Amino acid sequence: MGTFTARLHDLVAEHNELTSAANAVDTTWNNGVINRYVKPILTAEHTPLYWRYDLNEETNPRLLERLGINAILNPGAIYHDGAYYVMARIEGADRKSFFGLARSENGIDNFRFHEKPIVIPEVEARDVNVYDMRITKHEDGYFYGVFCSERKDTSVPASDTSTAVASAGIVRSQNLIDWERLPDLKTNSAQQRNAVVHPEFVDGKYAIYTRPQDGFIDAGSGGGIGWGLTDSMENAVIEEETLIDERRYHTINEVKNGQGPAPIKTDKGWLHLAHGVRNTAAGLRYVLYMMLSDLDQPWKITHRPSGAFMVPRGEECVGDVSNVLFANGWAVNEKNEVFIYYASSDTRIHVATSDVETLLDYVMNTPEDPLFTADCVSQRIDLVEKNLAIKDSLPTACFA
Amino acid sequence: MGTFTARLHDLVAEHNELTSAANAVDTTWNNGVINRYVKPILTAEHTPLYWRYDLNEETNPRLLERLGINAILNPGAIYHDGAYYVMARIEGADRKSFFGLARSENGIDNFRFHEKPIVIPEVEARDVNVYDMRITKHEDGYFYGVFCSERKDTSVPASDTSTAVASAGIVRSQNLIDWERLPDLKTNSAQQRNAVVHPEFVDGKYAIYTRPQDGFIDAGSGGGIGWGLTDSMENAVIEEETLIDERRYHTINEVKNGQGPAPIKTDKGWLHLAHGVRNTAAGLRYVLYMMLSDLDQPWKITHRPSGAFMVPRGEECVGDVSNVLFANGWAVNEKNEVFIYYASSDTRIHVATSDVETLLDYVMNTPEDPLFTADCVSQRIDLVEKNLAIKDSLPTACFA
Repeated sequence: MGTFTARLHDLVAEHNELTSAANAVDTTWNNGVINRYVKPILTAEHTPLYWRYDLNEETNPRLLERLGINAILNPGAIYHDGAYYVMARIEGADRKSFFGLARSENGIDNFRFHEKPIVIPEVEARDVNVYDMRITKHEDGYFYGVFCSERKDTSVPASDTSTAVASAGIVRSQNLIDWERLPDLKTNSAQQRNAVVHPEFVDGKYAIYTRPQDGFIDAGSGGGIGWGLTDSMENAVIEEETLIDERRYHTINEVKNGQGPAPIKTDKGWLHLAHGVRNTAAGLRYVLYMMLSDLDQPWKITHRPSGAFMVPRGEECVGDVSNVLFANGWAVNEKNEVFIYYASSDTRIHVATSDVETLLDYVMNTPEDPLFTADCVSQRIDLVEKNLAIKDSLPTACFA
Repeated sequence: MGTFTARLHDLVAEHNELTSAANAVDTTWNNGVINRYVKPILTAEHTPLYWRYDLNEETNPRLLERLGINAILNPGAIYHDGAYYVMARIEGADRKSFFGLARSENGIDNFRFHEKPIVIPEVEARDVNVYDMRITKHEDGYFYGVFCSERKDTSVPASDTSTAVASAGIVRSQNLIDWERLPDLKTNSAQQRNAVVHPEFVDGKYAIYTRPQDGFIDAGSGGGIGWGLTDSMENAVIEEETLIDERRYHTINEVKNGQGPAPIKTDKGWLHLAHGVRNTAAGLRYVLYMMLSDLDQPWKITHRPSGAFMVPRGEECVGDVSNVLFANGWAVNEKNEVFIYYASSDTRIHVATSDVETLLDYVMNTPEDPLFTADCVSQRIDLVEKNLAIKDSLPTACFA
């Protein structure tokens, strides 16, 4: 067996072992609200070998990786036709991201990619980078994908090779594979990221969650999760953006926040998953939080459970951009089980599972953040005292 | 046996075990281009005990560490007289760096330090810190060492105790141990770092890779890897700096870049190893990349393989300055095997191995970064389709 053949054999065997491995609930941590899993569902090494290697012995006799993949992160997601789909952001060794659609039968392992990377048609202003697609199954019959399109800021001197402008790019599809590009979202904000289409018409219009911001990294004087209506998705224009969830001092979303995936409709209202950002001496820290909004007026938040819903844990804490959890995709099946797809530290994708009833319990029965430490202590002492009042009815060890 | 003697015995045994351990290829990762190794080759704990401890029981009865060493990083390197030498940057507990020369017979383990730290003679403007020496064996017969000399910026108010000025310090030697200090490099740039002497004369002059920059951390309007000629190394003056590798938006070297070690001469051109820096929400990220330049005109880059050559992996991701790979040393032996010495997160030194032919294959056959996501997707789909075209000749599992 030649070197090429032997090496190919090893590569394929290792890859197959990785992508076929079963996942399992992480039993070392449990807060009752979600289950975490032992392994990430997707890493750079999960991407198909034939997307990275030239497998032709004549043109690649040493079987070197020709087009490396650096990371896989921030996936849109949807449950469709009995399977779980994630639209992953895949970052090449070249730092440009593209989308890859992966499918799993059970939502927690054995994700397999569609044969080729997804093609996003361009608009006149070319995208330098695209990422973080939110997929919405709209009642108009289309899947909408809204993603961030990033372009160099041409208003700065040429020597500034970093400053970018973020816009909300829009595509639609009927099969999740072939996507039609629509014009970018127009709003009155200088930049847009984290835009998400609401699944239903509101007053006969399309509704979009937004995140207006002044600069590329800074939320600036704007910030917060916004909301607006547009007559059409073929030329999406939001004349008026309303802030529905503002940033607040000394909270988990003090610096920035943004809507995660499209909200989940329940009989109690719309379940929202979002990310909140604060600053630290080691850079920004991204965590996830949840909210509930009114069933008929989805722009009105009715419940804000205090603090973070999920924070980085263990290996999730470290990666290309450390201290980050980010989620822009979740999937709900017929049994109302919820599969939350989240990325850790801009490097790998994980799943956490729950169900609609449990998430409603969490969102509606977790008290709101009172914003002052003395009030937070009172809130906690109230909980403590309620527990102490029923001490005799519980095992002694509960109070050890 | 007294406490001192017992503790000394343990210390020596542990140190001896650490410095004598064999290293091995890391089999959990392989892209065909390089081998990584399981263990770092040098950590702070590898430095000689007698450089850190007062071993005299009378003056140090508790056997306390008297002069701690915090980290070991960014080594220059050279293959010389059948052995592999690294000129490591050793950072004391006091945050000042100095150089230590370590030697190994096989290049991957059992590095042993020269008896004493290397002495760098001072010039009139005293160095507050020196680091990141590049060693070049020049055809004039000398080893040249170019390092960064850092001094406080005296133009800022005294209350600013951080702002520094970086210059390229120059030494030369004939035995790697005893170094003669030459005047610092003079250029028209405000600051200089990552300067490296080219191994051969160009038009009868010495050639130096530079990295002009405006500020101490910021590349500013300058930046990119530069190149210039000087008549003499005893008074090195570059009148004209030419940029040979510019920073580009949304690449792995968007924010900063710099030449690594002196390039390796091959029959296809000069192999370059460099570092590229981008910004993230968690601070700067340093990765390594490669290039090939013309054999006769080494300032003309002929091949720029797309994206990163090496990125931090596993424990490499975390350290004093996390998310950093940096390399300023490599060594080539008579068999054209290449030993790349790199540091991770400003904390420890590792080796990766390859050979000249494989690195040329990587550099010449990896396509260039097309800079726009749609073009990157086309490039990858082209690879995918070429692989799919030969599907029948390959194991089915390649496409699973």
